[in-house]
Amino acid sequence: MSDFSFKIIKKSKKSWARAGILETPHGIIHTPAFISVATQASVKSLSPEDLENLGAEVILSNTYHLYLRPGAEIVKKAGGLHKFMNWKGPMVTDSGGFQVFSLGWGRVHKIGKIGWFPGSEEFQEARLPEEARLQRPKFVKITEDGVEFTSHLDGSKHFFTPEKSIKIQEDLGADIIFAFDECTSPLAGYDYTKRSIKRTHDWAVRCLKAKKRKDQALFGIVQGGEYKDLRAESLKFITSLPFDGIGIGGSLGKTRKDMFKILKRMHSFLPEEKPRHLLGIGRSEDLENCVKLGMDLFDCVWPTRLARRGSLIVKSGRINIKNAKYIKDFQPIEKGCPCYACKNFTRAYISHLFRAKELLAYRLATIHNLYFTLKLMENIRNAI
Amino acid sequence: MSDFSFKIIKKSKKSWARAGILETPHGIIHTPAFISVATQASVKSLSPEDLENLGAEVILSNTYHLYLRPGAEIVKKAGGLHKFMNWKGPMVTDSGGFQVFSLGWGRVHKIGKIGWFPGSEEFQEARLPEEARLQRPKFVKITEDGVEFTSHLDGSKHFFTPEKSIKIQEDLGADIIFAFDECTSPLAGYDYTKRSIKRTHDWAVRCLKAKKRKDQALFGIVQGGEYKDLRAESLKFITSLPFDGIGIGGSLGKTRKDMFKILKRMHSFLPEEKPRHLLGIGRSEDLENCVKLGMDLFDCVWPTRLARRGSLIVKSGRINIKNAKYIKDFQPIEKGCPCYACKNFTRAYISHLFRAKELLAYRLATIHNLYFTLKLMENIRNAI
Repeated sequence: MSDFSFKIIKKSKKSWARAGILETPHGIIHTPAFISVATQASVKSLSPEDLENLGAEVILSNTYHLYLRPGAEIVKKAGGLHKFMNWKGPMVTDSGGFQVFSLGWGRVHKIGKIGWFPGSEEFQEARLPEEARLQRPKFVKITEDGVEFTSHLDGSKHFFTPEKSIKIQEDLGADIIFAFDECTSPLAGYDYTKRSIKRTHDWAVRCLKAKKRKDQALFGIVQGGEYKDLRAESLKFITSLPFDGIGIGGSLGKTRKDMFKILKRMHSFLPEEKPRHLLGIGRSEDLENCVKLGMDLFDCVWPTRLARRGSLIVKSGRINIKNAKYIKDFQPIEKGCPCYACKNFTRAYISHLFRAKELLAYRLATIHNLYFTLKLMENIRNAI
Repeated sequence: MSDFSFKIIKKSKKSWARAGILETPHGIIHTPAFISVATQASVKSLSPEDLENLGAEVILSNTYHLYLRPGAEIVKKAGGLHKFMNWKGPMVTDSGGFQVFSLGWGRVHKIGKIGWFPGSEEFQEARLPEEARLQRPKFVKITEDGVEFTSHLDGSKHFFTPEKSIKIQEDLGADIIFAFDECTSPLAGYDYTKRSIKRTHDWAVRCLKAKKRKDQALFGIVQGGEYKDLRAESLKFITSLPFDGIGIGGSLGKTRKDMFKILKRMHSFLPEEKPRHLLGIGRSEDLENCVKLGMDLFDCVWPTRLARRGSLIVKSGRINIKNAKYIKDFQPIEKGCPCYACKNFTRAYISHLFRAKELLAYRLATIHNLYFTLKLMENIRNAI
């Protein structure tokens, strides 16, 4: 790709970490990078100007959500997603493959990608309620040809194929797009996962064939769940194809330990020269370890979602700003933090805004949590 | 007051309009001025920086709301409301007197100050349902000494006296504070209103006596409802006291026509040299007429509340951005408008944000509606 290049500028001597520069038609991304999530063409509560002020270089939007609302043809008519939402920097769209999981087994089993239950702060072994084992996904039907989704907005049916996912992503016009895949659940068994990667691999080939635009980079996605041989098989297959980068998707086991083990095993199969995107991962406690395991790109709703609940990331961990003790705390969220929220407001005021359900609360909290995450990433990058 | 002065710099030859400069310890206000409402120490969805960028010179916060949450003592400990919310410009607090109405008869009769029913876009004769006539306010009990409020947050009881209102307002520390009054309903009869202004006048004297801080201006409030002789009586009494400005409060009749008639009648009694604040009024269709009737200051939640509902003010009236036809409309809200929302986004995008319930929607809409209102006021000012 003429407008797209990836250069590794530094490699750690102590780990597999590498620092690089990813060039896209809308500017460069310094890797390793945290990608802020703009699910519905907006990083929740922030303006593009806020993101620029935070030093965010790149955002990720969701193909499935934008396909349903406002619709890809409207975004195309607007001149693409960059113009539609007035974001001038690099942009990524996912393929809809994650929704195969999140609206499918994820929803039935109330489970996340690494096996933790949403709402639980701690990782835990995924325990599947008996009644859920008997259920099958209601909103997703998977065939060899593609996936039928039932819209969470109005119950209408939509059939996604690899070709359709690429077409939508070409209409949206992000700099980096992804192959359509089946993201498997941490609860998927070996046999299911084996059949599933076959599908994902077929779809990968179809995506490469369907792609028409020359100004977008297409990343393939490795699946294979927690199974050593299936991950290896998927890695070998996906990296043999002419993708511009490698996404690591799907279940990464049932605990954080599992995730690190799986990434470790994968490393020797990863081609050096291609950027690696660890899909959907980006808690502050995971970033450094995953960078050391050779990852370049991360996206995650975690810091922004936490923020809207009043959970603010600080060096010592997290504070819940709605807690009574902060009502009279006239310090900033984190002393010395130069973000707009910390420079201008106290915990007492932000606590008040949350209690009063004032909209400014969500924006200030999001600014702080994203600043923390982006700064952490910058520090990790500089330490390589 | 040493830090406080009001100079009239220009008077219209065609009307009673006047342009002036109101100096406060936190800066100057060019009058006539629209005051943005920050009920709970935040102009909903905006940061202080947003307000500065909009050219907003002055904001108004609500004493009763801040007294309940976070509490005046917390705001005082924070160093006052300016520091608490990080607003550096002039600031006004009301006295809680409006809540005597809004939580009292206003709530029982589902009625606003000029007799329109909330939710109705059009003025209409206030029609009082029969069952409501039999009810009495549940959340407010008025005695000669003060008002007992039942908190809308937790049902706790709070007794406001003129002295207490002044004490809270001194703790909050706004530049302009108001005397505690009884704001009457458009449905209050003559006899009730006559008794009520007696109370408001007693309270005005008590407020002046209670005031200790020298760096705040205290405005008195004229009541008297729609009754010619009672308005005149209240005006004569309030303007005879050493207030720094005159608030015009209470019911202004049952229609907009009534309001203009009432203001017209009051004009000859208003002292030239004192600033006049028309409390709670500020629809774009009212501002020019009220300026022509001699008003200097306005505050109203109308533009910001409309914005959060998706109703955007344009020169030709208002548009509801959630309307289907705007999904494909790639023009700005108003062509040529230099506000952040219009300069950077289309109707299609803002419509999408509203449909997707994205928080940025409320901020962009508020920025536009406030910009429109402040610009309108600037034009009215320049035309004097």
